Amino acid sequence: MTTLFKASEHAIAAARSAREAIRQGFDKPTAGLAAGMTQANMIALPRDWAFDFLLYAQRNPKSCPVLDVCEAGSWQTVLAEGADLRTDIPRYRVWRNGKLETEITDATEIYRDHPDLVTFLIGCSFTFETSMMEAGIDVRHISDNTNVPMYKTNRLCRPAGRLQGELVVSMRPIPAERVADAVSITGRFPSVHGTPVHIGAPEALGITDIMAPDFGDPVRIQSGEIPVFWACGVTPQAAVMKSGVPFALSHAPGHMFITDVPDAAYHV
Amino acid sequence: MTTLFKASEHAIAAARSAREAIRQGFDKPTAGLAAGMTQANMIALPRDWAFDFLLYAQRNPKSCPVLDVCEAGSWQTVLAEGADLRTDIPRYRVWRNGKLETEITDATEIYRDHPDLVTFLIGCSFTFETSMMEAGIDVRHISDNTNVPMYKTNRLCRPAGRLQGELVVSMRPIPAERVADAVSITGRFPSVHGTPVHIGAPEALGITDIMAPDFGDPVRIQSGEIPVFWACGVTPQAAVMKSGVPFALSHAPGHMFITDVPDAAYHV
Repeated sequence: MTTLFKASEHAIAAARSAREAIRQGFDKPTAGLAAGMTQANMIALPRDWAFDFLLYAQRNPKSCPVLDVCEAGSWQTVLAEGADLRTDIPRYRVWRNGKLETEITDATEIYRDHPDLVTFLIGCSFTFETSMMEAGIDVRHISDNTNVPMYKTNRLCRPAGRLQGELVVSMRPIPAERVADAVSITGRFPSVHGTPVHIGAPEALGITDIMAPDFGDPVRIQSGEIPVFWACGVTPQAAVMKSGVPFALSHAPGHMFITDVPDAAYHV
Repeated sequence: MTTLFKASEHAIAAARSAREAIRQGFDKPTAGLAAGMTQANMIALPRDWAFDFLLYAQRNPKSCPVLDVCEAGSWQTVLAEGADLRTDIPRYRVWRNGKLETEITDATEIYRDHPDLVTFLIGCSFTFETSMMEAGIDVRHISDNTNVPMYKTNRLCRPAGRLQGELVVSMRPIPAERVADAVSITGRFPSVHGTPVHIGAPEALGITDIMAPDFGDPVRIQSGEIPVFWACGVTPQAAVMKSGVPFALSHAPGHMFITDVPDAAYHV
């Protein structure tokens, strides 16, 4: 990101209105809401784990691009004035000892019972999808109105302290003649996953069945299209699982936090 | 940075040879050594301060772009296999309670007496200067063989925990017709300070006398040239001073750590 410059009043009003709807009970994936405003993955860990996680993110910046770190115990972020991270995400996941315990739509009690949570907001590929569509590249899961397919890979992230785990990737099928364009376009957003980590050859990533993603939904791959893989913001959840973190709170995949920061702020 | 890809054998040999010379006693600024290989600022803090510093860097990425964080107590980095951060920097500064205590050329005893130091390597603008010169933009302090001028500004960084301090900037005079090119070129290196933070109007940054920098040397500004300001890796030292950090070790300005990573690795 270059600078946290302010979006237009109109754009901020759209983001506020989306967060207000979410606070009132909207419980669906957020793709397409407040278009042009940056959405973020969320993960919150006990303070004792915060350094390990921040280091894990620093060491794996393509999968864990940190957009903001809240003060310990706080649910406020500089990315959206007046927002409340306890209520302004449609759906949360509660993790205990590395296992998914439950999903909830209001995390107020979680923050009360765990007053030392440090909340991280992490970049999301929604930011560059808008630019790809503007360049005439079909983003299949948006066209087909499904969730993006995500896969655990055989690549391990660089560990940090007690945290370790696999790289998780998202996949978008791209016509062979537009793959270079997709690289260029997403490369302009290094702080929200940037360029692909892998183009074609899914088997080399340990993906044996491209139609059976580990998270999200499978998408149609047409003749002449290449599967292109980007580092994915679900990677932190994979680390929470693999490392047996005693307690964590995250967003549910696809159910993002909508900020007041325009996508353009992350464009280099 | 996209990936830690390996430089050529030849380039790595040049970096190793430079580090070897430094280890044997070379005690001068490192500009121009092992050209094309990334050089880094260094700061090491007690483990208890590591989270605050990593957070400070995350919140002020233009001035504190972290390239690597070593394990607590370690002097090894993934950026240069076999390098020894206790001896492979020409000159170090020792800070106590926010005050410069002394300068040394070997930090072996420091690491022995402070076994919990966490060492951070931070991007340096040398990385983009090569690209500017290749584009025919004169980099004045290199042409004139002086140290780059650096200034404390009236802009405060976003604080983190116990750390606070001013933004420090470096300045390069650029012909008015090349300022846009300088922005484009440096913008391709977002993880080593990226685009300028300020172009012209030094008084708006609180700089009253451009010929009296706070660090480094003044440089000639010719008719038709605009002073252009980039965030500077001395910003962490300003935070150490302002925040009264009980103990810290840093490189001496201009006396950098030479890595095995080519500048191109930080090009987006």
